[in-house]
Amino acid sequence: MGIMRLGFVHIRTNDLEASARHYRDTLGMQLSATVDGRQYFKGWDEFDHHSVVVEDGGVGLVKLGMKCASLDDLEGYERRLGAFGVTTSRISKGQHHAMGEALSVQLPTGQTMELYADMEYVGTEVGTFNPQSIIRDPRGAMVPRLDHMLIAGEDPLHTERMFMGCLDFKCSERLIADVESNDLIATWLFTSGSSHDIALIKGEQGKLHHFAFWMNSWDEILRAGDIFALDDVSVDYGPTRHGITRGLTTYFFDPAGNRNETFAGGYTSYRDRPTIIWTADQLAKGIFYHARELKESFTAVYT
Amino acid sequence: MGIMRLGFVHIRTNDLEASARHYRDTLGMQLSATVDGRQYFKGWDEFDHHSVVVEDGGVGLVKLGMKCASLDDLEGYERRLGAFGVTTSRISKGQHHAMGEALSVQLPTGQTMELYADMEYVGTEVGTFNPQSIIRDPRGAMVPRLDHMLIAGEDPLHTERMFMGCLDFKCSERLIADVESNDLIATWLFTSGSSHDIALIKGEQGKLHHFAFWMNSWDEILRAGDIFALDDVSVDYGPTRHGITRGLTTYFFDPAGNRNETFAGGYTSYRDRPTIIWTADQLAKGIFYHARELKESFTAVYT
Amino acid sequence: MGIMRLGFVHIRTNDLEASARHYRDTLGMQLSATVDGRQYFKGWDEFDHHSVVVEDGGVGLVKLGMKCASLDDLEGYERRLGAFGVTTSRISKGQHHAMGEALSVQLPTGQTMELYADMEYVGTEVGTFNPQSIIRDPRGAMVPRLDHMLIAGEDPLHTERMFMGCLDFKCSERLIADVESNDLIATWLFTSGSSHDIALIKGEQGKLHHFAFWMNSWDEILRAGDIFALDDVSVDYGPTRHGITRGLTTYFFDPAGNRNETFAGGYTSYRDRPTIIWTADQLAKGIFYHARELKESFTAVYT
Amino acid sequence: MGIMRLGFVHIRTNDLEASARHYRDTLGMQLSATVDGRQYFKGWDEFDHHSVVVEDGGVGLVKLGMKCASLDDLEGYERRLGAFGVTTSRISKGQHHAMGEALSVQLPTGQTMELYADMEYVGTEVGTFNPQSIIRDPRGAMVPRLDHMLIAGEDPLHTERMFMGCLDFKCSERLIADVESNDLIATWLFTSGSSHDIALIKGEQGKLHHFAFWMNSWDEILRAGDIFALDDVSVDYGPTRHGITRGLTTYFFDPAGNRNETFAGGYTSYRDRPTIIWTADQLAKGIFYHARELKESFTAVYT
Repeated sequence: MGIMRLGFVHIRTNDLEASARHYRDTLGMQLSATVDGRQYFKGWDEFDHHSVVVEDGGVGLVKLGMKCASLDDLEGYERRLGAFGVTTSRISKGQHHAMGEALSVQLPTGQTMELYADMEYVGTEVGTFNPQSIIRDPRGAMVPRLDHMLIAGEDPLHTERMFMGCLDFKCSERLIADVESNDLIATWLFTSGSSHDIALIKGEQGKLHHFAFWMNSWDEILRAGDIFALDDVSVDYGPTRHGITRGLTTYFFDPAGNRNETFAGGYTSYRDRPTIIWTADQLAKGIFYHARELKESFTAVYT
Repeated sequence: MGIMRLGFVHIRTNDLEASARHYRDTLGMQLSATVDGRQYFKGWDEFDHHSVVVEDGGVGLVKLGMKCASLDDLEGYERRLGAFGVTTSRISKGQHHAMGEALSVQLPTGQTMELYADMEYVGTEVGTFNPQSIIRDPRGAMVPRLDHMLIAGEDPLHTERMFMGCLDFKCSERLIADVESNDLIATWLFTSGSSHDIALIKGEQGKLHHFAFWMNSWDEILRAGDIFALDDVSVDYGPTRHGITRGLTTYFFDPAGNRNETFAGGYTSYRDRPTIIWTADQLAKGIFYHARELKESFTAVYT
Repeated sequence: MGIMRLGFVHIRTNDLEASARHYRDTLGMQLSATVDGRQYFKGWDEFDHHSVVVEDGGVGLVKLGMKCASLDDLEGYERRLGAFGVTTSRISKGQHHAMGEALSVQLPTGQTMELYADMEYVGTEVGTFNPQSIIRDPRGAMVPRLDHMLIAGEDPLHTERMFMGCLDFKCSERLIADVESNDLIATWLFTSGSSHDIALIKGEQGKLHHFAFWMNSWDEILRAGDIFALDDVSVDYGPTRHGITRGLTTYFFDPAGNRNETFAGGYTSYRDRPTIIWTADQLAKGIFYHARELKESFTAVYT
Repeated sequence: MGIMRLGFVHIRTNDLEASARHYRDTLGMQLSATVDGRQYFKGWDEFDHHSVVVEDGGVGLVKLGMKCASLDDLEGYERRLGAFGVTTSRISKGQHHAMGEALSVQLPTGQTMELYADMEYVGTEVGTFNPQSIIRDPRGAMVPRLDHMLIAGEDPLHTERMFMGCLDFKCSERLIADVESNDLIATWLFTSGSSHDIALIKGEQGKLHHFAFWMNSWDEILRAGDIFALDDVSVDYGPTRHGITRGLTTYFFDPAGNRNETFAGGYTSYRDRPTIIWTADQLAKGIFYHARELKESFTAVYT
């Protein structure tokens, strides 16, 4: 049945105590485990063992993971990726904490992506038997789950073709230089019903722009911003709306400098939804819909 | 790639003028066409020709439609449904206004369901080239799109098996009499990332409980309720939260007496999300989470 | 400068442990003190010692308090109330815990009201020096402050005249039987900028219908309702909007059976705002704007 | 009974057609009248003839008006302002369109302020007899009413004393250089129950920083921002929360360059509410609570 979602993001920090304070206390994630110096976090509405992994070593992305519905999916993807000319390798069960067998993929944009189907089950914090609808006593911003990420690389077009051709992703929106050239600057790709699970932007090879947590409402985006003020989190931009995806957003940094986002709203991306085209002259409106003005830190900082 | 969503609901009315006022003026849908006495409506964020069809003849459900990603899906479904013992028949292109070829399925619960892959493209009201995020001048409650429906029948368990076994639906939540008997009272099934696309409840064969429109927020649920007061729409219950699906909701009736719902929120249903179990003793909490008290009209009225 | 607001509501309970769980844990108030078997609670954004007092003895209202800007106000009120024919008596400082001198007023509707200007200062929970905007770790529904109350009595018209003529209240809305008779059924009176500080309804002498806590938003009304489900609070009606005052609301009961309300929104009541008139035939719309249908428990239960 | 609220703001524009598009079409105000080249606008929930006046002549503030409860108030204010050393003059009925007698006050900060008690009654757009709660078909951002303004001048301390000593304003919040010097940078003053009706900041004499429209919710702030994108309004900053007043906000400019604000939330300012003190080192947090970073245009542009 294929890839279901962005399963995890694995990043570096220069201060594990600070990252625990950020992801656990400020964002309200659960620290599922600390193993071999790596911290494993999950959101309250996630049932898998982790969606964020943090390890010592500076800043930036170690790798990302996409969860498949079935272990059998890996073989087909391996074959199609090979035919496309992408390097893959097999990871056996037990090699990564709490994860089963995986297929490691070297993205043309330089990042490492793992496809996997099995992760240790922990369960959501509201349960599955006559469950509650909310967490009664929130921890910080209480992000329910990981949602999507944006990565950079020199050839987003080639990588878009890989995601769509080999991995059955669809494209919800595309940013092009202009209608004449049709040069791709960025692309938003989905496999679930969300407006995007991963986005690609032309830029320095192998870099991370941000990864985002789903929020249930514009009010939760507000409350997260209030928590950032209380906990002295560095906020990059927001709250505002994106023109691209229509999502509601605040961007901020974790203590190491990796950019996070709280994200709500956007539309439902059925596979037959027509792809939206943005041209570069409308970029500022596409990114920050209200002010229609870009901020230097937002466009310049990648990790 | 299979069924993507609940594509349309086709219902009866006893007053076409009143239904136009309701679906077009109060709910803010677009009247795509009136052909052979049938009204075809679509929401502002829908691109297909229609999601609601209304025809003269009283009250209740004529049929429902599920849209597939590809015409090739129909053949596989036809075979699997046949093997399951369900009666199907082919509908050729042009037989239904604005629709392509379809597979008509006689549900074990008595309703008629059509699977189709092609519908005339009209486009959303915000466009696909440097689009806007909102409708500037709303018409009434301005529902963006159809979301899901709840139908009744004598054997929901058998029909659940059909949806899951033949049509690749997954189950997000189940209501059972008690843990000992495990007797199924109702089931919530999804194929998209939404908490449910269709739900089944034990009851009178062939009946409709309600169909629901997606709303973007709790504030839009509020504003819709305000519009219902202005337009004198009969409200059944709400606003409130559901325990089941966590959705935010108001139930109301169209002029013929078909129950509608405005629905927002709920979680994202990935295919590996563990199924939630509710027992009948918690039914009131599952339906109306805040008051935890059922209302007779809600449980008694089916059309 | 006169009366500023509804300062406190003093009620009875049959279970002090249960009332502490309700007002402190579920509503999130601070228990300022327990003295002589009386519990004194304040909201997080209130700076005075208490706004809710609970004592043993069943159910219902002991008295209510209105806070004046200055101790000098009492004398003028005493004189005007005496001239109006209302019985008053003086209460000396220290007679009531944490309160200064007061004027006790026997309302024509049968309740006891105290006017006072001094109460022990405790301070809000966010401070007054470079303060925070929110409470980081909420306790339950986290009501910020007391807002208004509704009391019943045989002659609301006479009592309305007393509030307006002797105490400088203004009337924001009035419910009358019909335009011909102009018989007063209920009246909403304000002294602060809120839509009402106290309302009067024709009914059994000396009774309490409800007292309400201010909420900052429709989202906080939702979250309070979710907390009521978690804490098994008896909900009477809501969430919904009122036609009268436009307020957003949920009604619920404390463990003794006294009705509470979470209330948000409504307009700002400047003293020159024209009074709104409702007629009894529109009562259901005035009370519950969306469903326009009254609920028996709501109209029948007074304590 | 004294001053009730900020009644009107009278400003200059360089393009009356553009200002009509802004205040009427984008903000959704009603154009009550155009007389002698002056445009008079009111919000849908305002009952007086106007709250914004626009005349040709560039940019900036002509004057502001504060509405008193009674014409008798003017005499006392005249006397107290005279004793304070402030120049006042009488304006007779009919001198200003739709306004009665007024007292013109030369503020120490250089602006002209008029105190008045009578303005032609137009009525709100929802009526006063069994009224509706909302406007069914919104025009743009649909601002309900004027709320407050911020003006600059060389000696805010002296002007604060005038507002508090002569006009019975109270101070909700003060921004000082530091605790040692206690030098006043800005002050927020209220007479109604709102967090502030007027604020003063140290700066160029006679200048306007912004005037604000009340919005009912964080969602209305969002929708206003979306409308600004659609109508190409220049947005200065937002949406965000203020630390000072806790208000929710977006700043933007009218076509002439006068700064407007959409504002929601904040607390209720009873006259005994303790004054909050902010120190200059926390200024950025006080102004833009989430990002805690000032924007040059926001601090530099006055008109």
